[in-house]
Amino acid sequence: MEKITVIGAGSWGTAISFVLAENGHDCLLWTRRDEQVVEINEKHTNNSYLPGIRLPENLKAVSDLKQAVDHAETIVIAIPTKAIRDICKAIGEIVNRKCLFVHVSKGIEPDSLKRISEVIEEEISPDKRQAVVALSGPSHAEEVVLRHPTTITAASNDQQAAECVQDLFSNNYFRVYTNSDLTGVEIGAALKNVIALAAGISDGIGYGDNAKAALITRGLAEISRLGVKMGANPLTFSGLTGLGDLIVTCTSLHSRNWKAGNLLGKGNSLEEVVSGMGMVIEGVRTTKAAHQLAKLHGVSMPLTEALYAVLFKDVPPKEAVDKLMNRTKKHEIEDFFLND
Amino acid sequence: MEKITVIGAGSWGTAISFVLAENGHDCLLWTRRDEQVVEINEKHTNNSYLPGIRLPENLKAVSDLKQAVDHAETIVIAIPTKAIRDICKAIGEIVNRKCLFVHVSKGIEPDSLKRISEVIEEEISPDKRQAVVALSGPSHAEEVVLRHPTTITAASNDQQAAECVQDLFSNNYFRVYTNSDLTGVEIGAALKNVIALAAGISDGIGYGDNAKAALITRGLAEISRLGVKMGANPLTFSGLTGLGDLIVTCTSLHSRNWKAGNLLGKGNSLEEVVSGMGMVIEGVRTTKAAHQLAKLHGVSMPLTEALYAVLFKDVPPKEAVDKLMNRTKKHEIEDFFLND
Repeated sequence: MEKITVIGAGSWGTAISFVLAENGHDCLLWTRRDEQVVEINEKHTNNSYLPGIRLPENLKAVSDLKQAVDHAETIVIAIPTKAIRDICKAIGEIVNRKCLFVHVSKGIEPDSLKRISEVIEEEISPDKRQAVVALSGPSHAEEVVLRHPTTITAASNDQQAAECVQDLFSNNYFRVYTNSDLTGVEIGAALKNVIALAAGISDGIGYGDNAKAALITRGLAEISRLGVKMGANPLTFSGLTGLGDLIVTCTSLHSRNWKAGNLLGKGNSLEEVVSGMGMVIEGVRTTKAAHQLAKLHGVSMPLTEALYAVLFKDVPPKEAVDKLMNRTKKHEIEDFFLND
Repeated sequence: MEKITVIGAGSWGTAISFVLAENGHDCLLWTRRDEQVVEINEKHTNNSYLPGIRLPENLKAVSDLKQAVDHAETIVIAIPTKAIRDICKAIGEIVNRKCLFVHVSKGIEPDSLKRISEVIEEEISPDKRQAVVALSGPSHAEEVVLRHPTTITAASNDQQAAECVQDLFSNNYFRVYTNSDLTGVEIGAALKNVIALAAGISDGIGYGDNAKAALITRGLAEISRLGVKMGANPLTFSGLTGLGDLIVTCTSLHSRNWKAGNLLGKGNSLEEVVSGMGMVIEGVRTTKAAHQLAKLHGVSMPLTEALYAVLFKDVPPKEAVDKLMNRTKKHEIEDFFLND
């Protein structure tokens, strides 16, 4: 039995706390909101995020960040990408021993172009962190708390740390693989949202499964090209955090990014979509970051560029998709995989 | 304008004839059934297979095989896998010049373990065939005849033949890539149906998108392992005929193989499923062939083996899936990609 702290009580933070508590660990869940703390501790539910699910009674919540950080030497960060830097700064000021940091976020910081693990490393000084592990894969929170089979990857430059996370989380419905390719896992996890937007646009225009399959296939190929340039193992993109997560994101109607793309494809403006959905659409930020990364590394990413033109240069979605489908290169391997 | 013959007026044979005729070619469509010939020639429809679609008026049909074969030097074979050998034998006896053969079938002949192009090569003597091309990819016929964007691969050992097919079919909604990896394209196209059965079983048991994504990811990895052993280019499996077609097959509720798997997952026996659906479930035959190929080439294919046990050894589907999800290997790259 280990002591573990999870920062963030959204649906995913709560679901992984559920797994950890079920595995017998002393898991403390931090949330900013006092009423959520009361609900989790007294009613053992978190109905705003996982309605109808009864949480393990040994799972406790707290709203005091110092208390949360002091609780454990393993800290799992489960908050939206754009808040990661601030929370890490705050944790970095509190933490007083060498901790193992795990994150479950999917994104790239725009402009700095840092992966999440790099942001964590910048904000938590080396004497306060043992290692950083990314936990990522095709995993709807709603299915995990129903104990449906789920596979996921624990990635780290530190193999021992990845194995430690594997041991903490693994059970008979939650299967954790390790992967030493942290860069590939984080790039795949982030950039899948770009493709999900594009897939949503194609569906929104009224195109079918054929067009969507083409976009997903070519999208994964261009992510791989970029990732490999950044030092990733190409096989990672055919794994759970690449292909696996991409499938779930592009084919589930519940995906926020797909939904946003779908509205764009139907003719709504980006402003209308963003304000209408009333929440962060991670893929929009990530498209900007991907566009910048492609430039920086000199990698051809036609799908990313087409989407960038739709989002930020007012190119009509149909024009962008049709142009993408009518490029001149004609050999599959050359065009998809060697075109950098 | 070229003369082309298409053998088989099912939905896919008719859809590719539609494309060829729209491209201005003199396309003759062969079907065994006289009433279908009359319908296509007089009403310009093929309502049993593509209801509501008006076919180009320059598309003609015929039921005489000799007339069809004599029409063109390019012959496209678009009939179910299990009838391929017989029709090729018949064509081989009729054909009196060197023709280019194109096939659009997805399967492996059980026991002989031949790919479709190998069957064609066995039945049509070398002096009667210029080359064999496989045309394959994520392509619902219903979407093609609505002129929705579709991408597809023309694969051949003979690059010039593949380019010729590319030229015949390409237009602004039907985009053809070439690929010189005929083995990889045919293996991917055939074995995707095995994974579609497994994905259907998982859904039928009541498991969610997480489990399905895991099955698809690991399934594609084991197909790649087998294909590479058989001489294929690993990149082909990340392309349109691998990943692309797999996505369409595993996530479309219209997929026959997924549907059969779904019924198995819900507790029906193979006999009940086969007789209830009243048509060939290609994936069942292909699972047997894949099991034999795995043995022959000494490749570990746990998903194929699990499915084989369900189909032919009465192992309950849930037991097979759960066992598959709880194997001991734990490093993603090792387990998925190097495990042969």
